Amino acid sequence: MKILVINPNTSDSMTDGIARAARAVAAPGTNIVAVHPSFGPESIEGHYEEAWASAGVAEQANLAKSWVPSATVIACFGDPGLEAAREVLSGPVIGIAEAAFQAASILASGFSVVTTMKRTCIIAERLVQRYGYEHQCRGVHGTDIPVLSLEDCSKETLEQIEEASRIALVKDRSGAIVLGCAGMAPLCKVLSERLAVPVIDGVSVAVKWGEALASLNMNTSKLGDYAVPQSKRYSGFAEKIAI
Amino acid sequence: MKILVINPNTSDSMTDGIARAARAVAAPGTNIVAVHPSFGPESIEGHYEEAWASAGVAEQANLAKSWVPSATVIACFGDPGLEAAREVLSGPVIGIAEAAFQAASILASGFSVVTTMKRTCIIAERLVQRYGYEHQCRGVHGTDIPVLSLEDCSKETLEQIEEASRIALVKDRSGAIVLGCAGMAPLCKVLSERLAVPVIDGVSVAVKWGEALASLNMNTSKLGDYAVPQSKRYSGFAEKIAI
Amino acid sequence: MKILVINPNTSDSMTDGIARAARAVAAPGTNIVAVHPSFGPESIEGHYEEAWASAGVAEQANLAKSWVPSATVIACFGDPGLEAAREVLSGPVIGIAEAAFQAASILASGFSVVTTMKRTCIIAERLVQRYGYEHQCRGVHGTDIPVLSLEDCSKETLEQIEEASRIALVKDRSGAIVLGCAGMAPLCKVLSERLAVPVIDGVSVAVKWGEALASLNMNTSKLGDYAVPQSKRYSGFAEKIAI
Amino acid sequence: MKILVINPNTSDSMTDGIARAARAVAAPGTNIVAVHPSFGPESIEGHYEEAWASAGVAEQANLAKSWVPSATVIACFGDPGLEAAREVLSGPVIGIAEAAFQAASILASGFSVVTTMKRTCIIAERLVQRYGYEHQCRGVHGTDIPVLSLEDCSKETLEQIEEASRIALVKDRSGAIVLGCAGMAPLCKVLSERLAVPVIDGVSVAVKWGEALASLNMNTSKLGDYAVPQSKRYSGFAEKIAI
Amino acid sequence: MKILVINPNTSDSMTDGIARAARAVAAPGTNIVAVHPSFGPESIEGHYEEAWASAGVAEQANLAKSWVPSATVIACFGDPGLEAAREVLSGPVIGIAEAAFQAASILASGFSVVTTMKRTCIIAERLVQRYGYEHQCRGVHGTDIPVLSLEDCSKETLEQIEEASRIALVKDRSGAIVLGCAGMAPLCKVLSERLAVPVIDGVSVAVKWGEALASLNMNTSKLGDYAVPQSKRYSGFAEKIAI
Amino acid sequence: MKILVINPNTSDSMTDGIARAARAVAAPGTNIVAVHPSFGPESIEGHYEEAWASAGVAEQANLAKSWVPSATVIACFGDPGLEAAREVLSGPVIGIAEAAFQAASILASGFSVVTTMKRTCIIAERLVQRYGYEHQCRGVHGTDIPVLSLEDCSKETLEQIEEASRIALVKDRSGAIVLGCAGMAPLCKVLSERLAVPVIDGVSVAVKWGEALASLNMNTSKLGDYAVPQSKRYSGFAEKIAI
Repeated sequence: MKILVINPNTSDSMTDGIARAARAVAAPGTNIVAVHPSFGPESIEGHYEEAWASAGVAEQANLAKSWVPSATVIACFGDPGLEAAREVLSGPVIGIAEAAFQAASILASGFSVVTTMKRTCIIAERLVQRYGYEHQCRGVHGTDIPVLSLEDCSKETLEQIEEASRIALVKDRSGAIVLGCAGMAPLCKVLSERLAVPVIDGVSVAVKWGEALASLNMNTSKLGDYAVPQSKRYSGFAEKIAI
Repeated sequence: MKILVINPNTSDSMTDGIARAARAVAAPGTNIVAVHPSFGPESIEGHYEEAWASAGVAEQANLAKSWVPSATVIACFGDPGLEAAREVLSGPVIGIAEAAFQAASILASGFSVVTTMKRTCIIAERLVQRYGYEHQCRGVHGTDIPVLSLEDCSKETLEQIEEASRIALVKDRSGAIVLGCAGMAPLCKVLSERLAVPVIDGVSVAVKWGEALASLNMNTSKLGDYAVPQSKRYSGFAEKIAI
Repeated sequence: MKILVINPNTSDSMTDGIARAARAVAAPGTNIVAVHPSFGPESIEGHYEEAWASAGVAEQANLAKSWVPSATVIACFGDPGLEAAREVLSGPVIGIAEAAFQAASILASGFSVVTTMKRTCIIAERLVQRYGYEHQCRGVHGTDIPVLSLEDCSKETLEQIEEASRIALVKDRSGAIVLGCAGMAPLCKVLSERLAVPVIDGVSVAVKWGEALASLNMNTSKLGDYAVPQSKRYSGFAEKIAI
Repeated sequence: MKILVINPNTSDSMTDGIARAARAVAAPGTNIVAVHPSFGPESIEGHYEEAWASAGVAEQANLAKSWVPSATVIACFGDPGLEAAREVLSGPVIGIAEAAFQAASILASGFSVVTTMKRTCIIAERLVQRYGYEHQCRGVHGTDIPVLSLEDCSKETLEQIEEASRIALVKDRSGAIVLGCAGMAPLCKVLSERLAVPVIDGVSVAVKWGEALASLNMNTSKLGDYAVPQSKRYSGFAEKIAI
Repeated sequence: MKILVINPNTSDSMTDGIARAARAVAAPGTNIVAVHPSFGPESIEGHYEEAWASAGVAEQANLAKSWVPSATVIACFGDPGLEAAREVLSGPVIGIAEAAFQAASILASGFSVVTTMKRTCIIAERLVQRYGYEHQCRGVHGTDIPVLSLEDCSKETLEQIEEASRIALVKDRSGAIVLGCAGMAPLCKVLSERLAVPVIDGVSVAVKWGEALASLNMNTSKLGDYAVPQSKRYSGFAEKIAI
Repeated sequence: MKILVINPNTSDSMTDGIARAARAVAAPGTNIVAVHPSFGPESIEGHYEEAWASAGVAEQANLAKSWVPSATVIACFGDPGLEAAREVLSGPVIGIAEAAFQAASILASGFSVVTTMKRTCIIAERLVQRYGYEHQCRGVHGTDIPVLSLEDCSKETLEQIEEASRIALVKDRSGAIVLGCAGMAPLCKVLSERLAVPVIDGVSVAVKWGEALASLNMNTSKLGDYAVPQSKRYSGFAEKIAI
């Protein structure tokens, strides 16, 4: 089983970190292939960057068609390009926000999201609406921690996330914390121990969900809007990855 | 890994069938323990029967506390007693409707539910609302096939479900079918081949979800409403399974 | 006119208290028949207990079929077993949460619920969603007062509820208080005087609603999901109350 | 007990008919006082007419302040001026659409509205949204029968309403019919017999709800937006009914 | 191009102020015709007053039919009588709340409403729901400033509104302020400068929207519920403005 | 006044057509600058193509920063890259779907969308949800007409759109048609005449909305998530348009 993990930003080190997190939870026979787009910003902290990331995910999903991944994970909490990838790939494609919300809804009747920059809260809130978790997600909390500062996470940053989580649990009357950034994956274990509630890292859940669906031979529906895109003329930079 | 599968009705043969479906998809090291309540109706096709099934699931979950299941699956599409089980158990507890909706939302942007008696449609519709899938679930379709007639499913019954599915896909503009009854699990493969879209059996997905969460050591939150119930006086029949 | 009042828990004294509250508001010709299940927990403060209470209400509703109540009231704020009772009975069946929300919506454009244990808030919130009062209900407030401590309500407990109500009115910008527990019925009058806003006890409203619908000869629809359950095999303890 | 019934249109004969319907269901000691505005259209079949009716209800509610009605019923299915009346009166004020939706939700898990002119459907649909019955109300059906033609209802008109109801029950998978016009009150009994499902006339329910709330001494909250309007300058025609 | 601006209250000076605000933003060729009803309250701060204002707007819209306004603006934040005016007029009719919400949704992903009396908040909240801005409008804030005190706005009143806006921006995590009263139009510029975020006055936006739609020859649909009202008997004061 | 119109696909001829439609409605002093991305697909008919278009809009918005457009229009019905453009630009940025929904909501109480490929319906439906028009938009109808075939629209294609519109008006009980593709702009006038209801072309409305907001000096809020993106490293093709 080969699972494609697309990191939508272009940071090599963050891609490596996500790959490590994915491999740490993958089953023995699962091969993790971690990639990032050939272009775009080094972190995704707003709508402009997300627009580039969507195209970047589309690029990488299209390039992976040749080797037919068993399942694909989009490893950025805004789930950029998720549906573009579903069109070009045949296996299941899972966003880490989507997977995290699903797991959190099983483990607690209410959860809170703790994320990085406050300006990205709206992106998480839109996903909550779009996926239908408005009753289960009881709050989205920004910390104004930059995504890239998570790579070499200081004691202070960890404590800031812990503190934000504690406040969220009380204020939102929640029972679980969803980590709102793929870069937080390495913090999941320690936060879980300190907070004594489920702390959900979307990368881990998405990898396991991908293994689960692939083992059931369940693939993306090609009836309807996830059908393979029509072949048409692409121009400029996109020409080489036209359908 | 030991996964408890609770069939909320009291049919021995249906419990066996569900156990077979669960074992067919379980990973090599996973042990499936299938049980049913010691009391209640032989099938669940309405609110009255579901009330009994909720208590029956509570009973079985409470009895299983002693051996601490790695994960628990509630194998009736109304997810009866799901939250009662979450209170008494520490591992993740997964309803088959919940799991099916989650998987379907990954595989298609819209899905339809095809179920048994028309009078149970409202139960599925309420779950759709409660879990937040009102945009993804584009229709719930009753066939008036009795649950127990699925056990020895005739060619005609299968064709009736296939036909209802075809109509649903077109009318609802859906891309996937969710089977609205645990008793339909054995039909999943053949329907999937005939319809050429993902056909989702909640039992299979819930078992894999359970393995996934258990392997991640993710447990039910004990902060909030899934905390262990308080010890108190139970009377009559329920006395022997008091908390 | 004979109105059945089912107390879903098994406390004799609480059943008596609810019967007194019901009789205090019943019209001269109305006969109140108050019962509780033959099994189950002595108070309902969580999902596990509610599962038992649902079956307990089903049992009592089924037993009452023989004398055809003019109307039936389910006297626990989670409205457990409400729809089960609607299936087996022909007269109107009214939940006290449902009735309280309806009355509150007539008397104020926004109301707050003040209830007992915090862990039960989610049960009230789910009913708010399910019945459609998300715009009118502006907050659900737990006090962590145990249900059974209301039976012999101390001055301190009363003041705690009064204080929680005052805070709710201001914080939620509400105009009325809904008491979130049948056990609070005796406090309705004094709280109403102290707070100078409508304080709604669901037991009282449900009894009057029941009289109203019964006098109009309006009965539960038997077209659709409230039709009489099908006859089928019940096993174990439930055998004796099979349909 | 004196219940004010305000017919928001200016038809004397329709006011008489509504008064008869109200008296037919009122308890022995209840006095029905039926009035209509001193100005405005003879029937309400659109937004323009409803704007006049709102002011007309405000006028009549304000005039009735002097004798303090025990409860007040607004007898037009759009519930025009409902909240204006709540501001000036101290007793409960009940709209017939609101009351009908509440009763229907108790008697069936889904209901359909059958009303007069198709152009008024939007008014009923807005009330469904505003009151929170979007899940229970499964359809609103116009018949293009003019309101005033109901006063002397022909056999054909009755059959047209019956037919529209039968279609609605099947198409909407509903269990009850709500009559979408006060002028349909006299048809309630015969339709109920023919259709064999609950047929709900809002006038009847609202009168009984009014008796119920009045007997419980439950009044409109004066905390918040239903507080008595501030005294201020009114000009023109409205001067004589200024607050 | 002639744009009708209906001030729904009967204050001459406020009508003049609104006319000035409208003319200040109108294009060179646009003629502003500002009117108020011949009857009703001098300000709209509750449901009772709004009922009169609805009829007042209906009156003025009907009187304006003769000269066929290019577009019509309803200049009170509750948008009273909006749909009545749409029925009798052929050009576009725009409510200032509706226009303000639309503009705010373009300029910021979340906005807050700052309005006058707290008791009117519910009116704004209902419009937010009715128009569909529940995700964009992140809060409605009353200041208990009377509408008429805005006409000769003191330094203190302005500062109070500024302060309420600052609090709203932070508490609601909003990016723009919508002024919840036509009487606040003259404060828009100074507040915008002080707050350094978009401050939206519905009168200005509605006038420009009206010019825009009129220049595109886009008129109110006469198919459906905005069709011209049927001719019928009107009595009393309303007789002279019957359809 | 200079208005930037970004056609998110890369078709020169379609860009020209959109520019003509924009100029046809622009005020005398308005300068229309129409551009398309330097890369990407020639038409947008699915998620994959839309991902590229989002980045393409981001590119063009960023390039336009230098000349500070008075307002910007995103001329593809999926509003791709809308919020990315709002981050990098200071003037108002308007999506044609958003503008069309706003105008339609003023002109009719319900509207229907008629669009091109059926697989794009989900994109329009998501925008309806995201912008809050679920009550006003009563249906989204695909015709399976390819976008590019609109450029040289045959009599048959026009008739197909007309027919789909007629069916939508009846089936959805709508009063207006929203054209679900920028390529349909040239058909607006003839369809409007034939259908005798408002037919709304988002390009026209968005241009007028842009002129309106620009003339009011209303700009995108830079408080919150539309703040200018942070400067950071971009790699590959995107490097040259880094922030």
